[in-house]
Amino acid sequence: MALPPSRPAPLLPSRGRLRPLGLDEVRLTGGFWAHRQHVNSTATLEHALAWVRKSGWIDNFRAAAEGRADRDRRGPIFADSDVYKLLEAMAWEAGRRDDPELDSVIDEITAVIATAQTGDGYLHTGFGGPRQPARYSDLEWGHELYCYGHLIQAGIAQARARGEGELTRIALRAADHVCEVFGPGGIERVCGHPEIEPALAELTRLTGDSRYLAQAALFVDRRGRRTLADIPFGRPYFQDDIPVREADVLRGHAVRALYLAAGAVDVAVEQNDDELLDAVVRQWEATVARRTHLTGGMGSHHTDESFGDDFVLPPDRAYAETCAGIASVMLSQRLLLATGDARYADLAERTLFNVVAASTGEDGRSFFYANPLHQRRRGSEPDTQAESPRADSSMRAPWFAVSCCPTNVARTLATFGTYLATRDDAGLQIHQYADADIHTELAGSGRVGVEMRTRYPYDGEVTLRVTRAPGSPWTLTLRVPAWATGAEMTDPSGERHGVRPGAAELTRAFAPGDEIRLHLPMTPRWTTADARADALRGQIAAERGPLVLCLESVDLPDDRDVDTVVVDPSVPPRDAARGDGSVVVAGALTGPTDRPWPYTDVHEAPKPARTGAELLLTPYFARANRGPSTMRVWLPVDGAPRD
Amino acid sequence: MALPPSRPAPLLPSRGRLRPLGLDEVRLTGGFWAHRQHVNSTATLEHALAWVRKSGWIDNFRAAAEGRADRDRRGPIFADSDVYKLLEAMAWEAGRRDDPELDSVIDEITAVIATAQTGDGYLHTGFGGPRQPARYSDLEWGHELYCYGHLIQAGIAQARARGEGELTRIALRAADHVCEVFGPGGIERVCGHPEIEPALAELTRLTGDSRYLAQAALFVDRRGRRTLADIPFGRPYFQDDIPVREADVLRGHAVRALYLAAGAVDVAVEQNDDELLDAVVRQWEATVARRTHLTGGMGSHHTDESFGDDFVLPPDRAYAETCAGIASVMLSQRLLLATGDARYADLAERTLFNVVAASTGEDGRSFFYANPLHQRRRGSEPDTQAESPRADSSMRAPWFAVSCCPTNVARTLATFGTYLATRDDAGLQIHQYADADIHTELAGSGRVGVEMRTRYPYDGEVTLRVTRAPGSPWTLTLRVPAWATGAEMTDPSGERHGVRPGAAELTRAFAPGDEIRLHLPMTPRWTTADARADALRGQIAAERGPLVLCLESVDLPDDRDVDTVVVDPSVPPRDAARGDGSVVVAGALTGPTDRPWPYTDVHEAPKPARTGAELLLTPYFARANRGPSTMRVWLPVDGAPRD
Repeated sequence: MALPPSRPAPLLPSRGRLRPLGLDEVRLTGGFWAHRQHVNSTATLEHALAWVRKSGWIDNFRAAAEGRADRDRRGPIFADSDVYKLLEAMAWEAGRRDDPELDSVIDEITAVIATAQTGDGYLHTGFGGPRQPARYSDLEWGHELYCYGHLIQAGIAQARARGEGELTRIALRAADHVCEVFGPGGIERVCGHPEIEPALAELTRLTGDSRYLAQAALFVDRRGRRTLADIPFGRPYFQDDIPVREADVLRGHAVRALYLAAGAVDVAVEQNDDELLDAVVRQWEATVARRTHLTGGMGSHHTDESFGDDFVLPPDRAYAETCAGIASVMLSQRLLLATGDARYADLAERTLFNVVAASTGEDGRSFFYANPLHQRRRGSEPDTQAESPRADSSMRAPWFAVSCCPTNVARTLATFGTYLATRDDAGLQIHQYADADIHTELAGSGRVGVEMRTRYPYDGEVTLRVTRAPGSPWTLTLRVPAWATGAEMTDPSGERHGVRPGAAELTRAFAPGDEIRLHLPMTPRWTTADARADALRGQIAAERGPLVLCLESVDLPDDRDVDTVVVDPSVPPRDAARGDGSVVVAGALTGPTDRPWPYTDVHEAPKPARTGAELLLTPYFARANRGPSTMRVWLPVDGAPRD
Repeated sequence: MALPPSRPAPLLPSRGRLRPLGLDEVRLTGGFWAHRQHVNSTATLEHALAWVRKSGWIDNFRAAAEGRADRDRRGPIFADSDVYKLLEAMAWEAGRRDDPELDSVIDEITAVIATAQTGDGYLHTGFGGPRQPARYSDLEWGHELYCYGHLIQAGIAQARARGEGELTRIALRAADHVCEVFGPGGIERVCGHPEIEPALAELTRLTGDSRYLAQAALFVDRRGRRTLADIPFGRPYFQDDIPVREADVLRGHAVRALYLAAGAVDVAVEQNDDELLDAVVRQWEATVARRTHLTGGMGSHHTDESFGDDFVLPPDRAYAETCAGIASVMLSQRLLLATGDARYADLAERTLFNVVAASTGEDGRSFFYANPLHQRRRGSEPDTQAESPRADSSMRAPWFAVSCCPTNVARTLATFGTYLATRDDAGLQIHQYADADIHTELAGSGRVGVEMRTRYPYDGEVTLRVTRAPGSPWTLTLRVPAWATGAEMTDPSGERHGVRPGAAELTRAFAPGDEIRLHLPMTPRWTTADARADALRGQIAAERGPLVLCLESVDLPDDRDVDTVVVDPSVPPRDAARGDGSVVVAGALTGPTDRPWPYTDVHEAPKPARTGAELLLTPYFARANRGPSTMRVWLPVDGAPRD
């Protein structure tokens, strides 16, 4: 089939308050995110490809094609999806760099995948072959539709970034198969792991064929109607407890919940279904208000990788899976496009800096799966040749037995430009601040171009220089983060005026060369938590701009444990003036007394001895880059550790 | 074989500071524990038997005998063990009641089990049969030796309580098989779940055959030498990370760790191995000082049912599995017998009242698997006909998919007398207070008898009346719990004097009719936690005697959530004068303000509005007996919820 023309972008709703820009319209040119995109491009992709090969996850497709996957298949049941996510990342990256070599790698892997797809479009290396379980015999855990979801997103990436290719065609055949098998009168159930929903909705956006969207809507509507078996974790685990329209908060497995919500927004937007959109907004609000860690991380339970109950937000056992962070950004981006509300970009920014950026090591070859806010164990240097089975290591690992996160980070960084800016008929909206060149066409006025330059997040000064303007008036909208009380904007005439958190707008007939400056106050601040968050009681955290800070034991005298520290909330944190976002706070090193029983009569509780100290806090995203260390985001306050 | 004569008791070390009494020497006559033993006898045993039958766990043995267990076997891989634990409980109970009807039930089930044992002594319904995995092909998860452990303990119970029978002989054949297969030159590995170690040691005590003890010692020594595969939870999960002699603290799966430690004490005592005993004492000390909940509950992680790192003691996610409580009591009892140190009886008491007694419902037919110290969700009335797959239900359930706890409680209550008293050459030691008649023979002086009467734990007055005395001097030793500052003792002459926590001794030539009274102060007290226990910061708990108190929402106006309460630590808790251990504290009902983001600048944190209130706290063991409720043990303190 011949596909209609499409912008290069992963998410292209046909309606909504704001319109996304293509990755060809927003190019990162330097600074925090361009550096990460570069490391992703030059190290992570190659690293992930090597591990995917070494782990046998590409060979799995050969084994399936040759009917020997029952004995030769390796890795978890959803290993196919990591090949697809990597292909998606490579396709976007090939587009960004216009890199035919990368196209060849994609084609080579795609050719292997193609051999495993059966004539009717079915494709999964774990089911349906000789001596394997039957297709769709384990929807609770089998991940077949989940894998299709990532396959379809990879196929869309290829089509939009490089033009339709074999990967796109495989994805389309799989999608057609899904519509046939799971459509009305077919298997009227859902997959244990949502993901096919946003993928199918996007496929309608790519192809114009409404069948895929209809199937996505069916899956969203079926969820919560107990078509899946009960499991030890309970049906909330895969959101099959309550229909999406009726639920009040996200619950169960965090990645599943967030992918489902993202798909529901896609369906709601395309079908103009305000009831469904409102339901997701309501769930987002409750989840953000009661079930989200300070970093934006989501998920409190290790046992089922799930959201905790309201205000169950333990820093030490925070799961805050990297993939849940990415999924949260995907959801917020969809809600931002649908509504234009800056709060969604606020949460996306928090999560991008403090979960997504925190998960990958400086070398781009090591990763965190879980992103807790308190590391009690020093741990040890990781083995760079061995996969890690653990979600609670204190150092980043090169790969995981369940390795969903590295490839998810790769596709997110490859498409990072998508989060920076949007347009509407009246103008251009800047949501995230980074060095970037932006140009697009405004329906109401014509072509506009803007160069953004900043040392953000280390510095709060952002300069936007207009490089192209149609001559007629248009509106430049800048997001003012919720924390940025006292922000100011300087307009092209040099006039400086206050702007309030939310959206700062400037409408005029800009001329090329016009400069607009945003001044975001970067004074570090102490943050406290809701009284119902028991695990955070009597503790405060330092933030600076969008960055959450942490204390690492490598910055303490004698590398003593972070748990021996208290801080003084009456002394505001101050900039460490190192240009890297770090902060100095007043506190003390304490010497807890070991007792045979840790519980004491309230009158006999020991008061720890103290000495004055200045403590250096560094950005959370940069944690665990200097060897084994203990770490805390939430710091006990001086004088009241036990009252 | 003809077994040597043996007392009726589950634990009979051949050495040690204190000597256990037989269950025929200590009889509970009334009060708290006799009531629970009665409910166990009249309800729990029958209930568990019905569920074991209904779950197919007895039929599994038939299926194995007939070679069709590969398709007909039901339940978890360790389901055999629950049949054995139930048989153990029934054997002790048959002995206590001298109940031939119970013997018949035991014989009937034993006959079924016998059909599944192969000629060489092997016995497990999940392995080794046609189309089943091979014997010992999955030592990490297969639980074969674990099941033997419980089988052997059941066989010992039958031998000691009722005389050697078929169950004893099955157990001996299995034990011989284990020694042959896992002895020197055999499979030099261990089972993923310790339990065979204390069982084999006890079997040597029963039979006099030292082979079993030697095999137990081998298993203890092999542990920690990485003979088991690494698993996603890591080798600490089954204590195969560090040899027992070298470890400093208990870690990994709590029940596994505690059963192993109990077995290590048995081996150390029988082999006079002070190094090994010291290692376990050191681990016990570190575990109690840093990894034990206020209730005595052990285990903080749901994901692997394991101990957390030091001071990871979240009330809401406390796992504190019932079986871990029982295992902890088993370990403490062994250390008490070995050393005579009252601290072990202190912890046993705390755990018996606040974990073991808390796990079973008033009807003896409902159980908690996990015993958290904070219940955030109200939950709903359980279905009394359906097993519960969840470890975090807010109400007790009739049975679990993994149902280790009910049968473990049953065998513990059936042998409860064993914890009350011991003897040495010089006298009698009372460790736990309950209405009981005690008589035994002192090697140094002759027969002694004591009647103990008390309303403990509701009242701190304990009266001990000497019913039989040899005329020569002997020593009566009474444990004074660590919390009982200000305790007093009245001697037979009526003289009252202070006694300090630890052991209060009285040596004289007692005469029948002599009365000794112990006066334990039951003034309720506020307890605070170590500053490193982040999840307990800014909270206090009320205790009264050995009881931990809790607040349940059913006792709040309008059944409002317990999370809306703060208490005033400056007002001591006072007895509610209801005779049931309940306590009244001063506090306030607060109204937390919902905000869109739960983190606030420290200067803008809302102060909750308050009203004065008196709050009723009830004993933790009695929680969840009045319908769905939220619950807290640790209560936020007034005035400082967030400073």
